[in-house]
Formats: sequence, structure tokens, C-alpha cells
Amino acid sequence: MDSRNIRLAVIPGDGIGTEVVAEGLKVLDAVGAKVEGTHYDLGAERYHRTGETLPDAVLDELRGYDAILLGAVGDPSVPPGVLERDLLLRLRFELDHYVNLRPVKLFPGVETPLGKARPEDIDMIVVREGTESLYAGAGGVLRRGTPHEVATQESLNTAFGVERVVRYAFDQALARPRKKLTLVHKTNVLTYAGDLWARTVDRVGLEYPDVRTDYCHIDAASMFFVNQPERFDVIVTDNLFGDIITDIGAAVAGGIGLAASGNVNPDRTAPSMFEPVHGSAPDIAGQGKADPTATILSVAMLLSHLGLADEAARVERAVADDLLERQAGRAARSTREIGDAITARVAG
Amino acid sequence: MDSRNIRLAVIPGDGIGTEVVAEGLKVLDAVGAKVEGTHYDLGAERYHRTGETLPDAVLDELRGYDAILLGAVGDPSVPPGVLERDLLLRLRFELDHYVNLRPVKLFPGVETPLGKARPEDIDMIVVREGTESLYAGAGGVLRRGTPHEVATQESLNTAFGVERVVRYAFDQALARPRKKLTLVHKTNVLTYAGDLWARTVDRVGLEYPDVRTDYCHIDAASMFFVNQPERFDVIVTDNLFGDIITDIGAAVAGGIGLAASGNVNPDRTAPSMFEPVHGSAPDIAGQGKADPTATILSVAMLLSHLGLADEAARVERAVADDLLERQAGRAARSTREIGDAITARVAG
Ligand SMILES: CC(C)[C@H](C(=O)O)[C@@H](O)C(=O)O
Ligand SMILES: CC(C)[C@H](C(=O)O)[C@@H](O)C(=O)O
Repeated sequence: MDSRNIRLAVIPGDGIGTEVVAEGLKVLDAVGAKVEGTHYDLGAERYHRTGETLPDAVLDELRGYDAILLGAVGDPSVPPGVLERDLLLRLRFELDHYVNLRPVKLFPGVETPLGKARPEDIDMIVVREGTESLYAGAGGVLRRGTPHEVATQESLNTAFGVERVVRYAFDQALARPRKKLTLVHKTNVLTYAGDLWARTVDRVGLEYPDVRTDYCHIDAASMFFVNQPERFDVIVTDNLFGDIITDIGAAVAGGIGLAASGNVNPDRTAPSMFEPVHGSAPDIAGQGKADPTATILSVAMLLSHLGLADEAARVERAVADDLLERQAGRAARSTREIGDAITARVAG
Repeated sequence: MDSRNIRLAVIPGDGIGTEVVAEGLKVLDAVGAKVEGTHYDLGAERYHRTGETLPDAVLDELRGYDAILLGAVGDPSVPPGVLERDLLLRLRFELDHYVNLRPVKLFPGVETPLGKARPEDIDMIVVREGTESLYAGAGGVLRRGTPHEVATQESLNTAFGVERVVRYAFDQALARPRKKLTLVHKTNVLTYAGDLWARTVDRVGLEYPDVRTDYCHIDAASMFFVNQPERFDVIVTDNLFGDIITDIGAAVAGGIGLAASGNVNPDRTAPSMFEPVHGSAPDIAGQGKADPTATILSVAMLLSHLGLADEAARVERAVADDLLERQAGRAARSTREIGDAITARVAG
């Protein structure tokens, strides 16, 4: 393996974030990656203590790392949206994570709520745009709290922002056996943004004659995730639709405890950030009940992003083997027990 | 039953729309409702012939009816969005259909992709707002077709528009045994609109002490539709989220062939419009393959809206019985065969 150290910023965050990140780091250690990790205490506790969510100086420091591992942020004690917007979304926007990469994959042995789905039916990659659309934070309110209140939200979409993520998605599709790319949007209602997305896919598609393209409205796609998941190979979609569809994906692929993600800056002008799709789950925090598998799979994505393909494959294999064994009617395991079991496989 | 005639405007529309509407009308006839129906040829064919989607004179005429039955609009020969926006959405907006009512109900005997779900787990009503949010058509484009293109979409939300649909949803919840109302939104990202919705639910909720309220982000709600549908009783949500979530609802409740809807103007300042959730399905149009059940259930909603509760119940029962029988391994039936079978039960 590559002998250089991985300079890793670790943001455990809130709730179960700290618990699952601990297991992710164990695995990273066991796989033989030389990691020089620095913990950052961003999250609810720091917000209450200092009023800070993401100080500029910390953001600047974070830019110097090879990658970031994040647990989860958010706590009921903090007004809704504050940590999400000023910490999580700010990181995604400032570090230009324009690809939010979310595999949706049913591992053999994992129980899915879909009675008839087999692992080969659910095996896709969602390429969610990460820096535009309704996530831009544009909007406003007039006459708040009166009967004449008006509240707006604006979706901002640019040719620059759409084209770069579409290109990334075509590259992903080209590298997979089925070579199929589906654009998910709502072109019949969001006509301006939809038109930009559709035209971009058509135009960039000319450079990828081997990739078959398809289009699906977000409503239909959401339905197909449930009753025809085999339709999809690679999906490219906007920030909001990607948020929704990847949670459906997590549900059909065995639950949010298994869903990994990477906030990727493909141009490497800033570190990419890897995190489980799940949130901080304050209701089960501190009880050792959280499944660290999503974080461990996010660590595999991190390794792969840093060019450590063999290590990434070893982690994925360890997870796959562990998931297969879970089926064999074993008792429920704690966060640490699952982490230990996967760590042992990675090391062994 | 009420002896007055129902003055009904019928818009079969495109594709399978004409096929399913014919069966809906048969059932309406069999239930003994005195219907005076007038057909309107709005849709792709008229658009090509005359360039018209919904002429003002026709819209004015439509205002005079007791209700509207719509099949489906949309055809690949028409540029995407034209019929959807200028016909379907225009009707919803002009006739002030501020409640888009979409039951999500698993009938006994119906196969669901969710392996373990039972009918009692999937029994909810989605109250989708119908006249605001991203459906307002606000937005624009700058430097179209250049590398500097910017496309925007604006979500417009008003206290007036949100409060009236929230009140309607509370009334629905109050009338049901579980008395639970869940707001679905994305308050952590759409902070202005989300804040308006959340405050409105809190405030109106004070007038409904017997209704339990809950909140769910759209991404989590989409997941729960798949792995915990029993969480939901009545849902209130915005136009776009309601569009997405009711298609997931259709999927888990046995498919789009069974999903009914009403575009309701509760103030009765204009006729309400009933339509299956599915689209015109050009790929199977004219082949007698479409399931008319969604349209027939929409007819039941129409009857109920017009105060014909007994007739509505008879249609629903006939559908429920037919669905139970379908399970008994019968051969696939044509659109007309299903329509005839339900009609016979209603009449018998
Ligand atoms: C916490 C929230 C802002 C975030 C999002 O909407 O992107 C989350 O749902 C996710 O998917 O990572
Ligand atoms: C056809 C389209 C404009 C429409 C919508 O988005 O409302 C449809 O999907 C629906 O749900 O009735």
C-alpha cells in the first residue's frame, strides 16, 4: 500500500456520531492505513459553550487535510437547521463538495422491506449534486407571523454547477457494466432548472456514446425505487431530489444503518468528506445501539478516494462478510461489537 | 339518495385517460347517480389541432359544473410540461384546488412490494397543498444555452395558503380514530417556508387539542413510507413533497393502478376535480391494459365530495371486493373486464 500518512480531520459531531466514528477509526487502523487523525469538537456542545458552529479559522485548518470523516450533526437542544446549515451544509459548500456520492446496494444476507428484491436488483450509485438548488439558502420572508406572511425559497442552478456533476456521473456510468445513466428531476414543473439539467445531460451524453441515458421524474423515480429498483444503475440528480431518493434507497437496501456517503470534491481543491447518511439519532444516543456499518462503509469510500483501492476493497469485503453472518440468526450486537467484528475481519 | 342531477364535466385527456374514464363513468351510472355529463376534448389531440390547451372560455364553462372527472394528460408528441402546466396545473390553480387529497390505503388481498406490511399498517391520507410552493411557476433563466446559464425556480408560500390546507388536514385527522397529524417538510434546509409551515401547524393545533401532531423531514418520511408506514395517519405537506410522497404511497399500497385523488376546493367556490394519480402512460395506451381501479376510486371520492356518502361507500366496497378476488389467482383482466366486474358489484 501507499506508504504516505493520511492526514485525517475527524468530526464525530453529535449523538450517535461519536459512537459510530470510533468504530470507523478502528477499522481504518486495522486496515493498515497510516492515519494521522485530529479530532474537531464541532457540534451542539461547542455551539452551546461558545456560540460557534464553524469558525473561519477551523474551516481554514480543515482545508489542509487529505480527507474528513464526519459522524453526524444535530441536536434537539439547538434550533432546527442551525448546525445543519452553518456546519454541515457550510462544509459541503465551502469545500466545494459538488458530488454527493451515495451507493444504494443491497448486500447479500441483508433483509430488505421489499419482499421480492434480490441483491442484483438493488445495485446503483446516486450522484447527488451538492452545492446548488434549494440548498443555496436563498429565500426570504415578509410580514412574518402575520396573516399576510409570504415565505420564499429559491432554487439556484448554474450551467457550471450542473455540467460538472453530470460529467462525473457519466464517468461513473461508463465504468460500470450496465453503463446506464438516469437523470431524475421534475422537468414538467421545474421547467427552468429541469430544462438546464436535461439539455446538459443530452449535450454531455454526446461525448459518452457507450452510456445509455434515461430520464425519470422524481415522483416516478421514488415509486420505481420501491417497485422496480432494477431500472437504475447510475442516477444523477439535484441536491434536494438526491436527498429524498437516497433515503428511499437506504430503506430498500436494508436501512439507514448501512447507507454510506461521500461528499466529494473531484477536482481535489479541498478535502472530501465522508459520512454515514443517517443523522445523530438523539433518541438512541449513548446506548451503544447505533449500527456503525454505514460509517465503516464511508471509511471504505474514503480509502478509495485516496487511491487506496485494495484497502477499500478489504473493508467492503469485511462488511459484506459480517452482513452475511448477521443473517445467521445471531443476537443483536452493540455498536462496539459490530465494529470489533468487522475490525477483526479486516485485520485477519 | 339525493335526487338532484350531478352536472359533471368529463376530461378524458390523453393515452389511457380515455380508457379508464369510460369505466369510471360506467360505475357512476350503475350506482344510480343521476349524471349529466359533458365531455371536453382537452389534451394533446386538441393542442395539435388548434394550439389550445385550456381556452379561457372553456375554463369559464368548467366553473359551472358540480365536479370534474379527469383521466390523464400528457403525450410524448407535446413538449414536456406544456399540457401539465397549461392544462392540469392551470385547472388546479384557477379552480383553487388547494387540497390535493390522496388516500394511501392497502386494501386486503392486494399485493404490496413490502414483504411484511399488512392492510392495517398502510392506511393514511395525504393532504397535499395544491396551489403554492414550487408549483407556482415562478423562476427564470439567464444566458440560456451558454456556459454562464443560470436557472432559478421559486417556491412561493403564504400564510393564507398554508393555513387553510393545515386546517383542512386537522379536520381530517380529527375525524379519524387515530387522530394523528404529521407535517412533512424540510425545515432544516427550506428554513423560510419550513418555518411558516411549522408555526402554522403549531398555532392551528392549539384549536385541536385532541389531535396529536408530529413532524418528519421529507427524506425521513420517504424512508418511513417504506419501512414504517404505520407511523402515519394524516399527513399534511407542500405541493412538491406531496407529489413525491404520494407516488411512494402508491407504490407501497399496491401500485399506481389503484391510487385515487381529489383536487378539492373545500370552499366550493369552484368545482373540485377527481383523477387517478397515474399519468397517461402512452406506452400502454389503447391496449386495454390500464387498470381503471384508480379512476373508479376517484369516482367514489367525487361522490363523497358531493354528499353522496352511501353511493361512495358502495363503490368503495365493490372495489374492495374485486381486489380481494383478484388475489384468488385469476388471469389478468383487461381495463373493460375490471370495469365491468366492479360495475356489476355496484349494481348488484
Ligand atoms: C441534515 C441535512 C441538512 C442533510 C441534507 O439534507 O443534505 C441530510 O439529510 C443528508 O442527506 O445528508
Ligand atoms: C403531471 C404532474 C404535473 C402532476 C404533479 O406533479 O402534480 C402529477 O405528477 C401528479 O401528481 O398529479
